[in-house]
Amino acid sequence: MSLLSDIQFPSDLRRLRVEQLPEVCSELREMLIRELSGNPGHFASSLGVVELTVALHYVFDTPEDRIVWDVGHQAYGHKILTGRRERFGSNRHLNGLRPFPSPDESVYDTTTCGHASVSISEALGMAVAAERQGTNRHVVAVIGDGAMSGGLAFEGLNNASSTPNNLLIILNDNHMSIDHAVGGMKEYLHNLHTSRSYNRIRNSAARSLESWGLLNDERRKRIIRFNNSLKSLLNNQQNVFEGMNIRYFGPEDGHNVVELVRTLRRIKDMTGPRILHLHTKKGKGYAPAERNPVVFHAPGKFVPETGERLKTEPGALPLKYQDVFGKTLLELARRDSRIVGITPAMPTGCSMNIMMREMPERCFDVGIAEGHAVTFSAGMAKDGLIPVCNIYSSFAQRAYDNIIHDVAIGRLHVVLCLDRAGLVGEDGPTHHGAFDLAFLRPVPGLTIASPMDECELRRLMYTAVECQDGPFVIRYPRGKGVLADWHCELQEVPVGKGRKVSDGTGTAILSLGPVGNTVQDAVRDLISENGDGGIVPAHYDMRFLKPLDEGILREVAEGYDHIVTVEDGVLKGGLGSAVLEWLSDNGYARRVTRLGLPDNFVQHGTPEELYGIVGLDKDAIKRAL
Amino acid sequence: MSLLSDIQFPSDLRRLRVEQLPEVCSELREMLIRELSGNPGHFASSLGVVELTVALHYVFDTPEDRIVWDVGHQAYGHKILTGRRERFGSNRHLNGLRPFPSPDESVYDTTTCGHASVSISEALGMAVAAERQGTNRHVVAVIGDGAMSGGLAFEGLNNASSTPNNLLIILNDNHMSIDHAVGGMKEYLHNLHTSRSYNRIRNSAARSLESWGLLNDERRKRIIRFNNSLKSLLNNQQNVFEGMNIRYFGPEDGHNVVELVRTLRRIKDMTGPRILHLHTKKGKGYAPAERNPVVFHAPGKFVPETGERLKTEPGALPLKYQDVFGKTLLELARRDSRIVGITPAMPTGCSMNIMMREMPERCFDVGIAEGHAVTFSAGMAKDGLIPVCNIYSSFAQRAYDNIIHDVAIGRLHVVLCLDRAGLVGEDGPTHHGAFDLAFLRPVPGLTIASPMDECELRRLMYTAVECQDGPFVIRYPRGKGVLADWHCELQEVPVGKGRKVSDGTGTAILSLGPVGNTVQDAVRDLISENGDGGIVPAHYDMRFLKPLDEGILREVAEGYDHIVTVEDGVLKGGLGSAVLEWLSDNGYARRVTRLGLPDNFVQHGTPEELYGIVGLDKDAIKRAL
Repeated sequence: MSLLSDIQFPSDLRRLRVEQLPEVCSELREMLIRELSGNPGHFASSLGVVELTVALHYVFDTPEDRIVWDVGHQAYGHKILTGRRERFGSNRHLNGLRPFPSPDESVYDTTTCGHASVSISEALGMAVAAERQGTNRHVVAVIGDGAMSGGLAFEGLNNASSTPNNLLIILNDNHMSIDHAVGGMKEYLHNLHTSRSYNRIRNSAARSLESWGLLNDERRKRIIRFNNSLKSLLNNQQNVFEGMNIRYFGPEDGHNVVELVRTLRRIKDMTGPRILHLHTKKGKGYAPAERNPVVFHAPGKFVPETGERLKTEPGALPLKYQDVFGKTLLELARRDSRIVGITPAMPTGCSMNIMMREMPERCFDVGIAEGHAVTFSAGMAKDGLIPVCNIYSSFAQRAYDNIIHDVAIGRLHVVLCLDRAGLVGEDGPTHHGAFDLAFLRPVPGLTIASPMDECELRRLMYTAVECQDGPFVIRYPRGKGVLADWHCELQEVPVGKGRKVSDGTGTAILSLGPVGNTVQDAVRDLISENGDGGIVPAHYDMRFLKPLDEGILREVAEGYDHIVTVEDGVLKGGLGSAVLEWLSDNGYARRVTRLGLPDNFVQHGTPEELYGIVGLDKDAIKRAL
Repeated sequence: MSLLSDIQFPSDLRRLRVEQLPEVCSELREMLIRELSGNPGHFASSLGVVELTVALHYVFDTPEDRIVWDVGHQAYGHKILTGRRERFGSNRHLNGLRPFPSPDESVYDTTTCGHASVSISEALGMAVAAERQGTNRHVVAVIGDGAMSGGLAFEGLNNASSTPNNLLIILNDNHMSIDHAVGGMKEYLHNLHTSRSYNRIRNSAARSLESWGLLNDERRKRIIRFNNSLKSLLNNQQNVFEGMNIRYFGPEDGHNVVELVRTLRRIKDMTGPRILHLHTKKGKGYAPAERNPVVFHAPGKFVPETGERLKTEPGALPLKYQDVFGKTLLELARRDSRIVGITPAMPTGCSMNIMMREMPERCFDVGIAEGHAVTFSAGMAKDGLIPVCNIYSSFAQRAYDNIIHDVAIGRLHVVLCLDRAGLVGEDGPTHHGAFDLAFLRPVPGLTIASPMDECELRRLMYTAVECQDGPFVIRYPRGKGVLADWHCELQEVPVGKGRKVSDGTGTAILSLGPVGNTVQDAVRDLISENGDGGIVPAHYDMRFLKPLDEGILREVAEGYDHIVTVEDGVLKGGLGSAVLEWLSDNGYARRVTRLGLPDNFVQHGTPEELYGIVGLDKDAIKRAL
């Protein structure tokens, strides 16, 4: 670590000779492997951009020049080179370094980037600002080929090509997103290379074209573009970026740092939007990660020497909600051939890969394209299939209009499973599934449910798929469930009906979703603390946010003095709010205490720490009672 | 009308000889001009697709085959040919034909399509369903070049190219969206044509390539693609669609119906995704509309013989909110060079064209790309500009994650002006700005305001731009304001402060936005009906949904028995809900009546009719009091 230890900031890096950069890369990579093996985080992405990170900070005058990372998975090297090396051990811990870049943490971080495909739009804004302010600031967006499948990236490209700006886009092409990248764009990038034919006949072609009067001087000036056109002809592949009027360079090897520095210097001061296409390898330089980049996207703890992953939690049970979803989906799909699965780039994360392995033709990984995932599902539902579309709750924010305009207005039978609802923990504010209940509740015609345990998840899935004929949303959290045995019969759940979990007097607790288990713990504590004759609150699991169980509401409004609502979503507009609306509309004046997420972005930490902070752990619930 | 009058359904059309189709087109065009001149609606788009509409229904076996229109602006001809000719006079009227296609109205309508860029995703879903069900159903998406700039269209293309399907995409390229189309895609499409060079040297080039061993048999099979590649080389233009692995045909003249039928028959049964690129003219066949397609997008009533537009409303005042926005934006921009304007394809609709004319370099029409509009604004705000981004309320649903992830988390100073909030009238459920208050209120750190009149709009804009430093949302309705003179000094409005409009006792009305004027009318009526000594309710204009004016809330909670909230947004999660939350959290038990939009999609009609139906007109408010 002879070089890296002297680098506090990029200015230190820039004092080195270019020949020393491979050593810096090697030390940086070593540090990433060592640190991440003990303190889990996003791993393989950062390994893949070590050389790019070093080259960018070497060539560009950061932080005055702007680097905009698309999804901060890849930005650990960037953190280490920008004043955060010594604190890197606190990465993703409560009050430690943040999971993704954040301007609140460092001036070297230009945006808070946890969602994919935003970098081109953000960077274009900065490039236009630089242009308007007459500065010479450079702006660089770094986007992966997976993120390039998102519509927002395309909207950014489309606008970049017609707005005066000097944006440099670096396309970090590793043929991966989190799972494998998919779609035409990926195919396209994969094939975008210089063929042997091209090199062989480039000169004679040029001569012929000249003799036909087509390679004139004006065109010669645009020789790069011409060469790209020629490549297209010979490869039978069209250059999309040139088509969009964005100058294209590459593809080049993204792991040759010296060559990268040379290329970046060459194109750094060119005017107009440009794209540099790099081939990189996710997990580069660490054999286990190169072999299995999907697993090593976020591998947890592992032995650095061998890549063996360490189990942090004892025992295999309970299963994760994700796996119960995946197994149940397959079970349902075996029974009903109309069922299809749709995921926007998360087959492993949401466990749809379980169905995918057995029925690949009935599963659709549409790439990082949440909006399309929902509208595509709507089209399938229109013509008689039963799409089960799984989206992470916080990413469903990207499909809001699709849910309203393409699904709800047409009352289409799309089953929307929102994974990672509630606080997700270490991934922080961009990934918490905090808003879904509040933003979906106002949409007419949606059924919105959340299971308290894995069996309920299975029953809700069965109900949504087989017993209903309209849009149905099921939201559930990340991680382990609560049952030792998740197997249960697939039975219909009456829509809009909750259930009484435990009896009591005085106070009625209405909870939605898995936070009900914390409520149960709190109630059990109270029982044991109060003794047999003590007064304990009743507990109802509402199961459905919409339609609300009016029977339960009437029962608690008439039978209890105090109502406590508990939900793992934002308080503004959620379950508690729905209960207040119903009470008011029906003329009941009852004391209501609402527990849920506050009106600020919750930061990162373990789920336990965070639920404690926001007042949704057992102790906080007991205090509220 | 000798032919058209015999066409009830496409099956009647298909009995005609192909030589008769030009006459059908001519009659259909004549009918559109006649009908639309007296019963306003979307005009120029439908004229531009007369030949395409006739050809599609002639060649394809609708409704068994699916035509998916992207934005139903263009679907009037389709309506007339599919059983709705005689009812066409009721188009856009309350209980009459719907403003856009709707499966609830006709089996020939495949989707409810009021928002742009959805057709490829929807149609792909249908094509996959056909494939899975083993039917021979054809699926055709018709998308304009403007809609092609939306990210969702790209996500659809990206997925179409990698999923087995036989989707036919028709690109209706008229160089327009509602205003002029913008962006690289538009430039690209404009240049995508067969150059003279191409025709001149096509054969000799082929011979040369053959002699170099590059035009082998396998490649010959893909001759269309090869020709496109060759075109690219010669035009210095790359074929984006071929790049995405979608077979490209065209461009062809979209107004030659006989030729169109021939082309469609030729490519109809090909396998794999295909795109047919047509050049059309928005407003084709009606000279005034051809000359000014932006105005004739939705011209209102006009004299069919001359194109003279008829004013339906007497007098020029009050001005529209849109124009007050546009003039005020220019006024502010003249004073502060950091201000820039951003619109996703609606410069005329939102009146940003007023600023655009004087300061084109400070206005950005980013195309139909609401997500990008917001994220691009975030990038500009990050580096010191003050972006005023104007989006129609219902389209802001498409930028929800951008507002949360790219603006709110970073607390960036983006001013978001949501035009067409509340019920918009004849454009119906896809266009009502019903949900914005409910979905934005839970987002931490947003300031959310709605002005009761034009001067308030101006003051809020001034406050948002000059006095604040964080995300600020201002929502206001479509159409005329309420003041004879909208001029007023630009003064700061204290954030989170409402105002008492009129005093009273017993009941306090809390309203937000222009619906407050209806409340005032109702209160005035009550005063005159009750006489001088009568009891009248107090009326407060909250101005801000967030932060709520807690001073007012305390005042009404303590001083009145009954609180009535009035808002032109959905009841679930809106202002009334916020008031209930505050009352509950602060221990007040007060009777609250909430007036707002119900939990169903409100259909089309005049705004007056619709506000009457939902209980937000003067009489309904009086009844509630």
